[in-house]
Amino acid sequence: MRGLVFDGELKLARDLPDPALTEGEALIRVTKAGICNTDLELVAGMYGYQGILGHEFVGVVEEGPTEFVGQRIVGEISIICGQCDVCLRGIPSQCRNRDTLGIRRHPGVFADYARLPARNLHRVPDRIADEAAVFVEPLAAALNVTELVHVSPRDRVVVIGAGKLGLLICQALKLTGAEVVAVVRRERSAVLLEKWGVPAVTAEMLPDQRAQVVVEVTGTAEGLSEALRMVEPRGTVVLKSTYNGLPQVDMTQVAVREIRLVGSRCGPFDAALRLLAAGVVDVESMIDARYGLDEGVAAMAHAAQPGALKVLLEMG
Amino acid sequence: MRGLVFDGELKLARDLPDPALTEGEALIRVTKAGICNTDLELVAGMYGYQGILGHEFVGVVEEGPTEFVGQRIVGEISIICGQCDVCLRGIPSQCRNRDTLGIRRHPGVFADYARLPARNLHRVPDRIADEAAVFVEPLAAALNVTELVHVSPRDRVVVIGAGKLGLLICQALKLTGAEVVAVVRRERSAVLLEKWGVPAVTAEMLPDQRAQVVVEVTGTAEGLSEALRMVEPRGTVVLKSTYNGLPQVDMTQVAVREIRLVGSRCGPFDAALRLLAAGVVDVESMIDARYGLDEGVAAMAHAAQPGALKVLLEMG
Repeated sequence: MRGLVFDGELKLARDLPDPALTEGEALIRVTKAGICNTDLELVAGMYGYQGILGHEFVGVVEEGPTEFVGQRIVGEISIICGQCDVCLRGIPSQCRNRDTLGIRRHPGVFADYARLPARNLHRVPDRIADEAAVFVEPLAAALNVTELVHVSPRDRVVVIGAGKLGLLICQALKLTGAEVVAVVRRERSAVLLEKWGVPAVTAEMLPDQRAQVVVEVTGTAEGLSEALRMVEPRGTVVLKSTYNGLPQVDMTQVAVREIRLVGSRCGPFDAALRLLAAGVVDVESMIDARYGLDEGVAAMAHAAQPGALKVLLEMG
Repeated sequence: MRGLVFDGELKLARDLPDPALTEGEALIRVTKAGICNTDLELVAGMYGYQGILGHEFVGVVEEGPTEFVGQRIVGEISIICGQCDVCLRGIPSQCRNRDTLGIRRHPGVFADYARLPARNLHRVPDRIADEAAVFVEPLAAALNVTELVHVSPRDRVVVIGAGKLGLLICQALKLTGAEVVAVVRRERSAVLLEKWGVPAVTAEMLPDQRAQVVVEVTGTAEGLSEALRMVEPRGTVVLKSTYNGLPQVDMTQVAVREIRLVGSRCGPFDAALRLLAAGVVDVESMIDARYGLDEGVAAMAHAAQPGALKVLLEMG
């Protein structure tokens, strides 16, 4: 089969063996996949992963438990042990022994076929098109914000950074009824936000210490510094990004103003599927381009362009 | 009156005017006061405060509301507006317009007399001696940990840094029933912790990612780095100290492991008084020395010695 592989360089391999299933796994024919910033970081050499890339996808099960065979599915990316103390506390995404689809010790979905434990799979309702289903994983990650932090409909919320993930976070947070504004640098995102009724502003337009919740999606020391400036006493800053190196952080301000910083990662697939099925999150507008898997290298280059939104790979 | 003043240099002034009360304030004859690390930082030029130092004290009300006159009292350090949105949300210690006793725009208690709004005062039960009452303010700050963060009796808790505040935090946390250990460098603190049944360990003795709650009291980048290493996925790190400059922090680890960092400052005086009255917190053992106010400069020098615990000033 074909697969987009990173082994120090990015390339399309055409003669990969089909996935060999282990117990409890399903064989998935991948239909479409989405390119995430993490994929770009992997190709930049972060995380040390080598193998088939990709973790946002929709596909059809060809082998595995009978209740899934022939079904259109999406899949959670953490391959867990199910037995460690963290799994047993009901936080499988933080399993101490986890592998991660296309990120750590488990081949990804930028390929004709992939494998995942059947317990990772979620059936996709008919009303959700393949192109929308590809967004279930990042939308679930966006919903992890409200999974970890209480956002009240009375809150003022600032989202700093409105790339692919930030735009989904803005939409998810707007559904709480809270007042949501986004700090945006690029016109492309500003136009989308305007369409969704989320004011797009610059950081300087926002006052000191007035937001109950700030979501930091830039992964930069500056974004973090702005977040601390904007959040009110006892307010919450959610960290949705990884950082290059160790940013300098004003921890004195965190202590004195009793700010909460909350790291956030993967989220609930079921909730993401419900919101997409309800049609209350607009993901189609976020698609910038579609490429066949054969053009995978070009697709990754497109996704790496500054300001690019979602680039899809179509396996068909 | 006399007062220990910092105006670029630390000195005992002998001819200060008595405090001039404003509306709602009480005149307090200070009996005893405690020297806090914040006092040492103020004298090092941090925070830009000039005036009478001191915010940990016990005294007797000489003028003010009749229900307080003649009473032995302790006092909360935030002088609040009572009208801003933060006050109205019931978080007076974070008042947007606050002054702070002996720290910001309000003269402190290292003096024969001090003034505070009557609403800041708490009567001290007879069974709490003056020398214990001086610890109400820092014990309240220690209790702010469990005010802001749920510590379960099932938790493993690590306190990093066992100086004056760290020792109070260890004692307060031990009362939750949780398993508390302290990372300690100095023998003096280790001996006290042993007496209280809190194991004193070195950081290297503690495993990665196994503590539900870590309280960081060192105010150093290393302490923070150790805290992040020790805390489990979705665990909580409480920041009880200010930091010199901007420490570098592994925010990627915070995001990926969904760690919570929670800043913590002042706490509940009522609860501190209840615990001291119940005799379940040992503060007497933490007193290193007693000085008369006339020897205030020497007392501050003593308190600044590495490993010094509580140094008291006696006004009498």
